[in-house]
Amino acid sequence: MSDHAEAGGGLDVPELQQRLRAFATARDWGPFHTPKNLAAALSVEASELLEIFQWLTPEQSAAVMSDPKTAHQVEDEVADVLAYLLQFCSALDVDPLTALAAKIERNELRFPVGGTPPLDGS
Amino acid sequence: MSDHAEAGGGLDVPELQQRLRAFATARDWGPFHTPKNLAAALSVEASELLEIFQWLTPEQSAAVMSDPKTAHQVEDEVADVLAYLLQFCSALDVDPLTALAAKIERNELRFPVGGTPPLDGS
Amino acid sequence: MSDHAEAGGGLDVPELQQRLRAFATARDWGPFHTPKNLAAALSVEASELLEIFQWLTPEQSAAVMSDPKTAHQVEDEVADVLAYLLQFCSALDVDPLTALAAKIERNELRFPVGGTPPLDGS
Amino acid sequence: MSDHAEAGGGLDVPELQQRLRAFATARDWGPFHTPKNLAAALSVEASELLEIFQWLTPEQSAAVMSDPKTAHQVEDEVADVLAYLLQFCSALDVDPLTALAAKIERNELRFPVGGTPPLDGS
Repeated sequence: MSDHAEAGGGLDVPELQQRLRAFATARDWGPFHTPKNLAAALSVEASELLEIFQWLTPEQSAAVMSDPKTAHQVEDEVADVLAYLLQFCSALDVDPLTALAAKIERNELRFPVGGTPPLDGS
Repeated sequence: MSDHAEAGGGLDVPELQQRLRAFATARDWGPFHTPKNLAAALSVEASELLEIFQWLTPEQSAAVMSDPKTAHQVEDEVADVLAYLLQFCSALDVDPLTALAAKIERNELRFPVGGTPPLDGS
Repeated sequence: MSDHAEAGGGLDVPELQQRLRAFATARDWGPFHTPKNLAAALSVEASELLEIFQWLTPEQSAAVMSDPKTAHQVEDEVADVLAYLLQFCSALDVDPLTALAAKIERNELRFPVGGTPPLDGS
Repeated sequence: MSDHAEAGGGLDVPELQQRLRAFATARDWGPFHTPKNLAAALSVEASELLEIFQWLTPEQSAAVMSDPKTAHQVEDEVADVLAYLLQFCSALDVDPLTALAAKIERNELRFPVGGTPPLDGS
């Protein structure tokens, strides 16, 4: 396991999914958590993250963490995006890490290093 | 480490971030990956996930994984959302798992089980 | 001119675009209003509108205007979405009404009444 | 009526809303058009517009209309955003032009020219 993960106290995705599930169950939020609603909430939170950056130049956007208030906002929105992504995955029994690893492998074929763009234009 | 993570081949977030970084570096995509652009791309991908569900009833939305083509689409969009979230976090040196754990703790105080909604209405 | 438009005090799109332009110019907001930033802001505001509905059932979503506070919120977010859409169109000299009329005509060919879905599956 | 509106063949918002309503009715799409679904679709289309700009520099974003293919894409996405915004407004009986005019007036008080930012920080 990497140093980074250990810095995070050995946190892992399945454990966080478990805590999110317990949190929602204790508050009877389950009925609201349809995949459709969770996908909507995920997209709303991703927009809240984008909102922080919408009027910034590329250079300003790279410096947001130097302001403690904005840094907290960024971390807070990252947490919200991840929370809804993980709850969405729990609801549909999708393993997000496996899905990403498979996508990276597909993209290695689709976008070869030094190659020309794929014919389908995508 | 949980059974779930082992089912995913021992994948973890720092390792996936490392692979995404190598992928982008090999293709010279670094200059495009400003925090602002990555936040925009994250929000675009979250909307592509929502698009799958936009006309479905809550019941239909819970059954999307029974169609193999839609199931693949869902996994593909989940991968894209996670990929941009992790690249965004790498760009700003935010640890997403720690951010989420801290948010869950704040929310436990903010939304007490069986309690009344917080006075600030949020 | 329709009764509806007269009810709105004879408001029309070009006049509102003119007022938005004067508003931004008076406050020196022009430099922030690149097409990219306006497209981001439009998408952020559309998500704020969606946020009102994210946990509602389809039935509840149809009844939002019966609560005066929510009705005001809906109108406020509609105004924000339209404001950024019109400013985006001004920035790139796109006529939104002409673009929509052209799209309706294309869609009439693409989705014939009583016809089968188009072969390209889109 | 402005020259601009006449260039657009005298198109106005209520007439386009009428055509969108006839289009949806003829195809039995009414049941899908709950306010919640239309708000989701609006946000998805706004993201598709943003997608065109997500990797562009501010300068490149200002030049998109010089490429005919991208120009058509921009117009097409503007049309989709406006279509769902107008259908959303029809579903809830909101007049978008009146809502925007009222919002501009509120903003003139909230952001006085040459004034300091409002105390509430918004």
